[in-house]
Amino acid sequence: MNKLTDIIKDPQRIVLQNAIPPSHLTDGLQLKYGQADILVYPKTTAEVVEVVKFANANNLNITTRGAGTNLVGSTIPNGGIILDLSLMTNIVELDKQTFTVTVQPGILLQDLQQFVEQHDLFYPPDPGAKTATVGGNISTNAGGMRAVKYGVTRDYVQALEVVMADGSVLTIGSKNVKDNTGLALKHLFIGSEGTLGIITQCTLKLIAKPKVSQTFIVGFNTIEQAIANITTVLHTLTPTALEFVERKVAQWGEQYSGFQFPLPNSQAYLIIMLDGADLQTIEQQRQQLLANLGDCDFFVAEDSKQTNQIWTIRGSLVRAVEAVTQQDPIDIVVPINRIADFINFTKQLEVQTKVRMLAFGHAGDGNIHLCILRDDRDDHQWQSDLQLVHQALYQKCLELGGLPSAEHGIGTAKVSYYNDAIPATNRQLMRAIKQQFDPKNLLNNQVYTTII
Amino acid sequence: MNKLTDIIKDPQRIVLQNAIPPSHLTDGLQLKYGQADILVYPKTTAEVVEVVKFANANNLNITTRGAGTNLVGSTIPNGGIILDLSLMTNIVELDKQTFTVTVQPGILLQDLQQFVEQHDLFYPPDPGAKTATVGGNISTNAGGMRAVKYGVTRDYVQALEVVMADGSVLTIGSKNVKDNTGLALKHLFIGSEGTLGIITQCTLKLIAKPKVSQTFIVGFNTIEQAIANITTVLHTLTPTALEFVERKVAQWGEQYSGFQFPLPNSQAYLIIMLDGADLQTIEQQRQQLLANLGDCDFFVAEDSKQTNQIWTIRGSLVRAVEAVTQQDPIDIVVPINRIADFINFTKQLEVQTKVRMLAFGHAGDGNIHLCILRDDRDDHQWQSDLQLVHQALYQKCLELGGLPSAEHGIGTAKVSYYNDAIPATNRQLMRAIKQQFDPKNLLNNQVYTTII
Repeated sequence: MNKLTDIIKDPQRIVLQNAIPPSHLTDGLQLKYGQADILVYPKTTAEVVEVVKFANANNLNITTRGAGTNLVGSTIPNGGIILDLSLMTNIVELDKQTFTVTVQPGILLQDLQQFVEQHDLFYPPDPGAKTATVGGNISTNAGGMRAVKYGVTRDYVQALEVVMADGSVLTIGSKNVKDNTGLALKHLFIGSEGTLGIITQCTLKLIAKPKVSQTFIVGFNTIEQAIANITTVLHTLTPTALEFVERKVAQWGEQYSGFQFPLPNSQAYLIIMLDGADLQTIEQQRQQLLANLGDCDFFVAEDSKQTNQIWTIRGSLVRAVEAVTQQDPIDIVVPINRIADFINFTKQLEVQTKVRMLAFGHAGDGNIHLCILRDDRDDHQWQSDLQLVHQALYQKCLELGGLPSAEHGIGTAKVSYYNDAIPATNRQLMRAIKQQFDPKNLLNNQVYTTII
Repeated sequence: MNKLTDIIKDPQRIVLQNAIPPSHLTDGLQLKYGQADILVYPKTTAEVVEVVKFANANNLNITTRGAGTNLVGSTIPNGGIILDLSLMTNIVELDKQTFTVTVQPGILLQDLQQFVEQHDLFYPPDPGAKTATVGGNISTNAGGMRAVKYGVTRDYVQALEVVMADGSVLTIGSKNVKDNTGLALKHLFIGSEGTLGIITQCTLKLIAKPKVSQTFIVGFNTIEQAIANITTVLHTLTPTALEFVERKVAQWGEQYSGFQFPLPNSQAYLIIMLDGADLQTIEQQRQQLLANLGDCDFFVAEDSKQTNQIWTIRGSLVRAVEAVTQQDPIDIVVPINRIADFINFTKQLEVQTKVRMLAFGHAGDGNIHLCILRDDRDDHQWQSDLQLVHQALYQKCLELGGLPSAEHGIGTAKVSYYNDAIPATNRQLMRAIKQQFDPKNLLNNQVYTTII
């Protein structure tokens, strides 16, 4: 290991086996732990290159991580080197003229968003974990609530610098908006969960910051009514966010946050955010929507306090559950007209298995986040019930034309459901690509095991 | 060849060597011609599969084509089979609930657009060649004028059915809006110019049809002023289209179309289209833009007649040139703040080489279309001058951080400029992918020669 200390000379940035903190041997759930020989914190691309060359020469696995918010096991190492990019937080360039920002991958999403908004610009992707790194967001093609209007992380990656498994450095993409010059290598790296290369720099597309936004809630008697009106919403306007939540789910957030969710007599809600150049336009769109929706309850957040309370309740649902019991997070996606079918299925499954489930999510894009509650089950019962529930949920998801991951990735946790969802011919091509990009199978080889 | 007649039994749909019309041995420019052994017109995926298996067994090249509007040589065959998909025009399914349409690849863009608009839906990509096929659009990731607001073809491809070089059929993607389930194979096929597989079906994302649109023109004294204001436009509003054209270029369109372009005293224009839910909102945005732009000339199209005249002039520029002389089309892209630099360079080059050039294009995304005019040069002089001009233009494009193809592709015509623009490591990875997907190198192997 002498050579690594030549590369990373600052002793604070190299941690040996026994001294590696448990937080670096797990993922965001902190339920499963791996092991590793060494943890390094590079600060530059040049340092990453040298570490990777060292790993390659010594056939050591590399598990790359950012803030460790991953929920599917991708940051649980299986020996070798943990490459922690959380010190690579530089903002390399803000180019206002081309609407781009170039950053190192360890910058936190919330820091990036804050920085560009100070310059009247806007980075639209907004996944729930604001303390995730941008590199992590790219590696899982993270989406979030604003995807219904603005798209996902993939849509905002203009260029990448990637260190390949042999230590060579790839520059892909540019500040050009349109590009049909060669195969879309950039898109292969986006969402590849660290299996194809290590992102060391990224250039992201920005847009002008929306001047105003408004949040309102439409209340319905049933979740079916709420879901049935998604198409009407999408035909009438382009929401920034379009979330669904049931009354009984909102109550978890109320209890946790101490705030009251509006329209307490409704059983299901669509939470809608609009943004734009002026409030008048937003008002017009909202009134048009009201006319098109017909009979329903309606609440408009009048000020930033009310707006914040609504989004705090919505944003606190997972933490509200975790304050009460351990939970298993699900991130499935179904075609938008199948959301109600899936929610109803979870209710039947709840009755059948007695496992409590809370469903909520991004109605505008069919991305359903489900918390499966452990409650007072012992380890054996929990694993057994969880397996039962998983199998039923992912099976139903496939029946409805859905997929096992919308934005969390496959990692180690979803490999079998990924195998069920993706045809063997497709997986064979993915394996072939992995083989070409990382012939020694060193990069994040604990995840995505079937494509390796 | 007997076996092929067992696959395609309709004699109208098999054409042998000498009977192949010249139109099928060339591209949209009709300047270079190749040769082929047989031309087939499959109607189903099953027929494509059998033809490909036949070709694979007999080591025959396959050149896939749609409407033949390609401008970079991709449809010029080099022996073997021409696979013409222009009879595969079925609309398989319109799914209004998930905002998707599933079609065979041979449907023309204009027919697809018209069909979905009848159902109050909208397919945003709008490349100039309305008679191109959707399959061709996907293969070149075609963009067009509305890309500045809505993105390019890539952004609207939800799922693909692809026949691989060995005859296996791949289904990639789904009706799900979000997807992080495995590597992004779909994005590899998009823009791959037929080199990785044959698209036999595609599911495309639609949006609600905008209710109204308005076109207006801002006139400036110089092209620099026009370009300098692009950032102001993009900070103030989200234009559906944002085109630039100089007075002297617009005059070509005036002469060809017989219409008068507005603001004849200005020397350069930004043509802006806005769309949305209502005219009032558009008016507000336009007035805000006027306030932000300061001193400039302004013309608003008051009715559909004026609107059509403006877009007819803009849309007729290439034909206006071709009515006078042969021309060579350029499709470079530069970062949006470098458009004026590039235009100015073309003017210097015009003076220096005496080769006339007409520049216009998509100001919102830096995509500059340039017509290089042959005028009365003989073959030798034309080739010699063209090479000189090409080398200077593509060199300048690279200096400005641009790329040799925004939306036309590389084909055979731009391979050397592609080699200059894309690092050798990237091209090596593309070659490795091609090798994995098409090991015998049968599919469109006349194009992209360096990745094969």
